Amino acid sequence: MSANLILESDLQSARARIAEHIHRSPVLSSEQINHLAEAELFFKCENFQKTGSFKARGATNAILQLEETQREKGVATHSSGNHGQALAWAAQKLGVPCHVIMPENAPKVKIAAVKGYGATVHLCAPNLAARENGLKAVQEQYGCTFIPPYDHPNIIAGQASAAAELIEDLHDLDLIIAPVGGGGLLAGTALSSHYYAPRCKVIAGEPAGADDAFRSFYTGERVNEHKPNTIADGLLTTLGEHNFSIIQDLVSEIIRVEDSEIIAAMRLIYERLKIVIEPSCAVPLAAILQQKERYKNRRIGIILSGGNVDLAKLPF
Amino acid sequence: MSANLILESDLQSARARIAEHIHRSPVLSSEQINHLAEAELFFKCENFQKTGSFKARGATNAILQLEETQREKGVATHSSGNHGQALAWAAQKLGVPCHVIMPENAPKVKIAAVKGYGATVHLCAPNLAARENGLKAVQEQYGCTFIPPYDHPNIIAGQASAAAELIEDLHDLDLIIAPVGGGGLLAGTALSSHYYAPRCKVIAGEPAGADDAFRSFYTGERVNEHKPNTIADGLLTTLGEHNFSIIQDLVSEIIRVEDSEIIAAMRLIYERLKIVIEPSCAVPLAAILQQKERYKNRRIGIILSGGNVDLAKLPF
Repeated sequence: MSANLILESDLQSARARIAEHIHRSPVLSSEQINHLAEAELFFKCENFQKTGSFKARGATNAILQLEETQREKGVATHSSGNHGQALAWAAQKLGVPCHVIMPENAPKVKIAAVKGYGATVHLCAPNLAARENGLKAVQEQYGCTFIPPYDHPNIIAGQASAAAELIEDLHDLDLIIAPVGGGGLLAGTALSSHYYAPRCKVIAGEPAGADDAFRSFYTGERVNEHKPNTIADGLLTTLGEHNFSIIQDLVSEIIRVEDSEIIAAMRLIYERLKIVIEPSCAVPLAAILQQKERYKNRRIGIILSGGNVDLAKLPF
Repeated sequence: MSANLILESDLQSARARIAEHIHRSPVLSSEQINHLAEAELFFKCENFQKTGSFKARGATNAILQLEETQREKGVATHSSGNHGQALAWAAQKLGVPCHVIMPENAPKVKIAAVKGYGATVHLCAPNLAARENGLKAVQEQYGCTFIPPYDHPNIIAGQASAAAELIEDLHDLDLIIAPVGGGGLLAGTALSSHYYAPRCKVIAGEPAGADDAFRSFYTGERVNEHKPNTIADGLLTTLGEHNFSIIQDLVSEIIRVEDSEIIAAMRLIYERLKIVIEPSCAVPLAAILQQKERYKNRRIGIILSGGNVDLAKLPF
C-alpha cells in the first residue's frame, strides 16, 4: 500500500463524516516557549479532544464506515489505552455495541473509563497471544468487527483531520511534528500535509527507549518486535504496515528523544501552556528543543496527542 | 464606598482600555463534570490569561490610568504571588519601571518570575511591618505609585472584565461563582453581573481555613486579621475595604469548603478539563459540588482564577 491509496477525497470525506461528533480542538501558543525554542510554535490541543486524545477521530471515522449489519453486531478492539476509550465512546455515541479486550493488570481507572462509556470489557492475561485469542473469541461469539488501533486506512484518514484543521487555521507552516507509536497520527498528519500544505515538511518525535519507527525508517525494514522502555506509555507499540508505507513516502525525519527530555518538555507545557498532557504528548516539543539550532525561526505546528495521564504518577 | 461608585461606564472604559493587552480567555465545559454536578457549568479560564491569572487585568487597568509623570517614576507593590507577577508584566509591557517588595523566604521561582518581567525585586523580612516599611522606602526613594493588589476601584474595574466577557459569551446564566481572598475578583464579578446580567446571582467560594470573608459577610463587620490555614495559597489575605462594601451590596452567598473538597475539585478539573490550575482556583467548583442539591439544573459560570502552581507540590 502506498500513500496515494488514501486520496485527498478520502481525507475530505472522513473529516466531513466525523465533524459533528468531535471537537475542533484549539491551537495554543506561548511567547515564553517560543522564546526558548527560538521559533514560532503552534500547539494543536488534542488533549482537549473527546475522550482526551486524537483517537476519537479515527474510531469515529471507522465506525461510521461500517455497513448497517456490521453496526448491529458491534465492534471490538484490544487496548489498554486511548484507542479502547475512544472506540467505546464513539460506539456508545453511535449506538453500536462495543467489546474491549483488556489485560487483567490494566489500571482499574482505565477499565472503569471504558466501562463508563458502556462497552463490555473482556479481561485477558497480559500477553499478546491472550489478547489476540480474546479478540478472536469475542469476534466469533458476537460476529463483531475488529477496529484496529492504527493499522487501517479508515483510522489513518480519521487521525489526519487534526492536522487538516491545524493547516486550515494556520497558513504558511514550515513544519508539522507529531509523535510516533503505531503511526496512525503520524501517517494521517503526513497525508494532510501532502494534500493541503505540500510545502510543509512533516517530521516525527519518538522516545529513544521505543525507537522502532526510527530504526524502520532509516533501514527501510519495518521492525515489528522490540522491548520498549520509556515514560511515554502511549508510544510503546511498533509501527503498522500501512503506516510505515505512508511514513516512508511522506515523512522527512524521525528524531529520538530521551525520557529526561520528554519530562522537561512536559513540564514546560504544564507550566507555560497550563494544560494537562500525557508524557507521550510531550515528545514532539522535546524533539524540537533538542534540534532547535536546525529549526530556528520556523513556524512549527505541534500535534499534542492526548491528556490521559495518571495524576498520581506525574514525573515532577 | 458603595457599589454604585463604580459605574457601568467605569467597567466599559476599563475593558476597552485593557483589551489590546490581555487575552480574551476561553470558556470550557465538560459533559462529565456537568453530569456529576447535575448542572451546566461554564469555566472561564483565567489560568490561560497573561502571567497565568486574572491579576493581569487589574494591574494593566491601574497602570493605564496613571498620569504620564507617575508612569515615568514607576509603580510598586508588595506581593509574593500573582499580583506581583502581573504588575511586573504589565509595567514592562507599558514601559513603566516596577518595584516589587517580596519576603526573603518567597519561593525562588516566584522571585525569578518577577525579575524575568524586568521588575526590581526588594527582599524584606517575612512580616507585614517589614513589607510595609519596604514599600514606603521604595516609594520615598523613587517617587513611584503604589498599586494595591485588590483594594482599589481601578483594580476592581479591571478584574470585572473577566465576568463581563463570560456574560457576553453566555446568555442566561443563572449564577456566577468566583473565589474570594482580598475580594478584587469577586467584587468585579458582582459589578459586571449587576450591570450586564442583573438576573444572574453572584456567589463566592472560600476556603474554610481562611474564612474571613464569610465571617465579615454574615456579621456585617469586616474581619481584618486571621491566621489562615489552607492549601489555597492565593486566598490567604483578608477582604479589602472597597471590596467588602461591594460584596455586601451585590453578592448573595459565600460558601466555605474544606481543603479535601478543594483537592477533589482540583483533581476533577485536571482530569476532565485537562487544564492546570492552582488550588485556589478549584474553590468555586468545590462549593458548587458541595451544594449541588441547591444548584441543580442551573446554568453556572465559574471563574477559574489562575494556574500558577508549583508542580512539585501538587496534592495528588
